[in-house]
Amino acid sequence: MKPINLKEKHAEFKAQWHPHQIAIVDNMQVLLAKIQGEFVWHAHENEDELFHVLKGTLCMQFRDRTEMVNEGEIIIVPKGIEHNPMTKNGEEVHLLLFEKLSTAHTGNVVHDKTKTNYPKI
Amino acid sequence: MKPINLKEKHAEFKAQWHPHQIAIVDNMQVLLAKIQGEFVWHAHENEDELFHVLKGTLCMQFRDRTEMVNEGEIIIVPKGIEHNPMTKNGEEVHLLLFEKLSTAHTGNVVHDKTKTNYPKI
Repeated sequence: MKPINLKEKHAEFKAQWHPHQIAIVDNMQVLLAKIQGEFVWHAHENEDELFHVLKGTLCMQFRDRTEMVNEGEIIIVPKGIEHNPMTKNGEEVHLLLFEKLSTAHTGNVVHDKTKTNYPKI
Repeated sequence: MKPINLKEKHAEFKAQWHPHQIAIVDNMQVLLAKIQGEFVWHAHENEDELFHVLKGTLCMQFRDRTEMVNEGEIIIVPKGIEHNPMTKNGEEVHLLLFEKLSTAHTGNVVHDKTKTNYPKI
């Protein structure tokens, strides 16, 4: 029940591709993430996933196209849809994610980038 | 699976205190709202509610204090907690809300401001 400043929270960590949990809303969690480069193809069998771009441009790759998601925009990836987030030209992009507490960020894939914990900040 | 620009969506409606639905994430909805002045005291028995301030300053009144939530900040009101959003000095504040599909915006209260539908935009 205190305001959470997203820029200040983003300044509290540096690790890329490692979501940090800032809040819980019912059975969902609010995560912040920094990403740079390309992630890994994956899908979430049972969870939709909302990406809100706070800084930079997210390139959300789907198997048939790529959507460019700019600062101030959101995109929702429905459950079951393969996707692979990336950024262009070495840009670090800052995201807010909204998804179920059960969501694994690499979904159905285990990869070097897979994190099994989301630190609370 | 298309990017949604929040400023553009906010420009599509004028009605204050009337949330508009822009997306669904599992059992939750993403709403945009414009508010000015004071709302009504209420609580949501079964739902947490996330407020993300996109423009202006939200004054979230609780029974024992008021939290000022600035642009780029979020605040979460847990289920059962009485609250009453307001704005200062005639400012129109733009919000993104994240809450269960079942959430009534005046919660346990029926008021002149109560809306029973959230238009999809």
